[in-house]
Amino acid sequence: MKKIVIIGGGAAGPKTAAKAKRVNPENQIELYTDENLISYSACGLPYFIEGTVKNINQLIVRTPEEFEKQGIRIFLEHKAQKIIPEKKCVIINDKEVFYDELVICTGAKPYVPNIKNINIGGVYFLRHIEDGIKIKEEMHKARRVAIIGGGYIGIELLEAFVQNGVHTTIVEYSSRLMRVFDCEFSDMIKNRIIEQSGQWVDMHFMEEVVEFVADKNGKFSRLITKSGLEVEADFCVIASGVVPNVELAKNAGIKIGKTGGIVVDSNMRTNIEHIWAAGDCTEEKCMLTNRPIYIALGNIANKEGRVVGINISSEPNEYESFEGILGSAITKYFDFTIALTGINYENATKIADKFNLHPICTTVVKKDKAGYMPNSETITLKLVADKKTGKILGAQGIGTGDVNKRINTVTSALQSGFSVDDLLHLDLPYSPPYSPAIDILITAAYRLKTQMNSES
Amino acid sequence: MKKIVIIGGGAAGPKTAAKAKRVNPENQIELYTDENLISYSACGLPYFIEGTVKNINQLIVRTPEEFEKQGIRIFLEHKAQKIIPEKKCVIINDKEVFYDELVICTGAKPYVPNIKNINIGGVYFLRHIEDGIKIKEEMHKARRVAIIGGGYIGIELLEAFVQNGVHTTIVEYSSRLMRVFDCEFSDMIKNRIIEQSGQWVDMHFMEEVVEFVADKNGKFSRLITKSGLEVEADFCVIASGVVPNVELAKNAGIKIGKTGGIVVDSNMRTNIEHIWAAGDCTEEKCMLTNRPIYIALGNIANKEGRVVGINISSEPNEYESFEGILGSAITKYFDFTIALTGINYENATKIADKFNLHPICTTVVKKDKAGYMPNSETITLKLVADKKTGKILGAQGIGTGDVNKRINTVTSALQSGFSVDDLLHLDLPYSPPYSPAIDILITAAYRLKTQMNSES
Repeated sequence: MKKIVIIGGGAAGPKTAAKAKRVNPENQIELYTDENLISYSACGLPYFIEGTVKNINQLIVRTPEEFEKQGIRIFLEHKAQKIIPEKKCVIINDKEVFYDELVICTGAKPYVPNIKNINIGGVYFLRHIEDGIKIKEEMHKARRVAIIGGGYIGIELLEAFVQNGVHTTIVEYSSRLMRVFDCEFSDMIKNRIIEQSGQWVDMHFMEEVVEFVADKNGKFSRLITKSGLEVEADFCVIASGVVPNVELAKNAGIKIGKTGGIVVDSNMRTNIEHIWAAGDCTEEKCMLTNRPIYIALGNIANKEGRVVGINISSEPNEYESFEGILGSAITKYFDFTIALTGINYENATKIADKFNLHPICTTVVKKDKAGYMPNSETITLKLVADKKTGKILGAQGIGTGDVNKRINTVTSALQSGFSVDDLLHLDLPYSPPYSPAIDILITAAYRLKTQMNSES
Repeated sequence: MKKIVIIGGGAAGPKTAAKAKRVNPENQIELYTDENLISYSACGLPYFIEGTVKNINQLIVRTPEEFEKQGIRIFLEHKAQKIIPEKKCVIINDKEVFYDELVICTGAKPYVPNIKNINIGGVYFLRHIEDGIKIKEEMHKARRVAIIGGGYIGIELLEAFVQNGVHTTIVEYSSRLMRVFDCEFSDMIKNRIIEQSGQWVDMHFMEEVVEFVADKNGKFSRLITKSGLEVEADFCVIASGVVPNVELAKNAGIKIGKTGGIVVDSNMRTNIEHIWAAGDCTEEKCMLTNRPIYIALGNIANKEGRVVGINISSEPNEYESFEGILGSAITKYFDFTIALTGINYENATKIADKFNLHPICTTVVKKDKAGYMPNSETITLKLVADKKTGKILGAQGIGTGDVNKRINTVTSALQSGFSVDDLLHLDLPYSPPYSPAIDILITAAYRLKTQMNSES
């Protein structure tokens, strides 16, 4: 029997708790969170705001009561203040809590830009359930909203606001939306947004917000950028990305990586004995290059939580490992899917020398189903490979067609080190309602092959 | 410059011609077919009959004129009667046609069961464009139709007829629909059909049709089975599968495999020099077991045609190869997707001794998107693996959810020899409108892992 203390109640913490209990029911497990609920899907919040998800309770995966039933003790609104590894103890709500194994699942927090008057009313971040509830309330009273940031959350909130008839201005400090994609894909995403809902949307790029101005009630009324642009709105959401929440770990002497996330080994152990970490507070390893990268996503948190849960209840010879990530991600703007996996061409070029890459790429535009099927839709797919080794490096896809299927297919190809040749032999299931006889992935592989042949 | 003669105009022949011309524009290429058109999508015929595809011309990928423009000569309604390899000549419409390289793309033909009076009016096979046109005409006049066979084409025609309000009876000689799936999947498919459109459909199993009875005009009026069952209908479609069309090849001494298809090497060469074959007339190699299998599908024909087209225009050191197939296939019954790849559990068990397999399987039922998304739908997925090696052997999926994405993802996993462990590390893109935080594929991998651990 071990006493396991888990700090954090988002996705990784509850998963760790449930798994550790299942593997060894003797374990005494306590989960502490400074929030007033646990085990919820933060990724679902934009769809709650939009109204697609009607009831906020639907986002709760498991209630504290369900965990208690399983014999896991849940402590809501308990703030972990300090870890004292030598004493195997955490100070929580000013009391000492002792552990045999400690798991840090403190998650991520919104990146807070340096903006004057950032603490006035009517300014929101989207991270917790309450944030979602408040933003939805504001939205229903508002005519205009400003979003700072044009990444995943920015786009998802844009959809929610436009869907509810609220005019939205995106202010983005870089030159484009969705910077994890190659430049021309960012442009196509922007164009699609304008095409789909231009009358509801303004977008400003290369604009750094420096000041908020409040109305006479002390509530947000407009933002001002460095260049002097002013955007009036009824409220503002800051969606400038997230950073790992690592103060607690850092103060305890736990190693933090260059990405800002907690460094863990493949068994999810930190550098301090009996302290583990999982979820959005840790950095991950890129399976393609082995370099550390940081991505905060619920599916990764779940997988990591599972691994920690197993390992803290097992002997070292039974340990499972978390092998890293590919950088896969997906979102949508109404019926327009935006997805990628692996390394984009710009990044591949940037890291080419360091990782000995020789990137080439091709972009194919094609129907997702047999062209004669009336519901066939277009996909734009970019495939990146290494022309020396032939290995696939990544794929980006957008469109109203079934982009997701193609990007999913590339993930397993990437993870197994598929070459362009392997990909063009891929025996995909074919039927006119599902794909053309020559799928866009195969077409892309053919083109890369021709390119490699002609350059060799 | 070479003179290339291609026999057959379905998918593989035209693809071969186009590719061979593109690789070496000097080549003199002649394509002969006994049909009156070429390069069409036979797989689209059920959707033409249904009415989803409005115009039959939409199924034509490229017209003879387009080929002629590219400098490829097309001979319609020209029947190849005999190959004389020693003279490098084919007798076509009683004339000698000489070749440097000959490509046999004679495709597949419907399997013709032994039924009395099979040649009466009102009995159809679905293989060529004209078949589709005639069946559609019959359907519009009919109240009741009988389909012999409950495989892919049977199900697709059933959808077409039900969609058009024609009562349909399926008569299947085996005990179930879709025999490429495991038994319980066949049952679930049958149940779905009954649930979706039971009032329009009758199904009879273990019934061998032995006789057709004509009305006074000599047209089909009912069928009779061995057991004495009689089914009345306005017309009948025989969809009892296809067999490779190999008489021409066989008579020339070209090697035919146990599957009935032409044996080719990975470069698509037959056993006779300067004679190649591609498409539905050839047998394929299973990439998982290396055993020969026969599957007639347009995507495979296309890939094989490409390889032959390149090879007949290249030097041996530039040859490309066709690596084989996984047995991937997909179809649908209205909004219900039916797909598989690799080896099913029953077959894995059957061939276990011969191929040293130790099959285990798990079946997971789960939503395709985050459960709280109102458009999330159910998938039933069965994953088969080898418990000794851990290797994935196959997957079957059905449901109104996005089955296709999951089966596609497994194809690249299968082709690369993924183990259960590899699959559970797969970094799939995640967002609530596209998948749950833990995708059904990952859940299935977790379960197989637990199963393997507990049995080891």
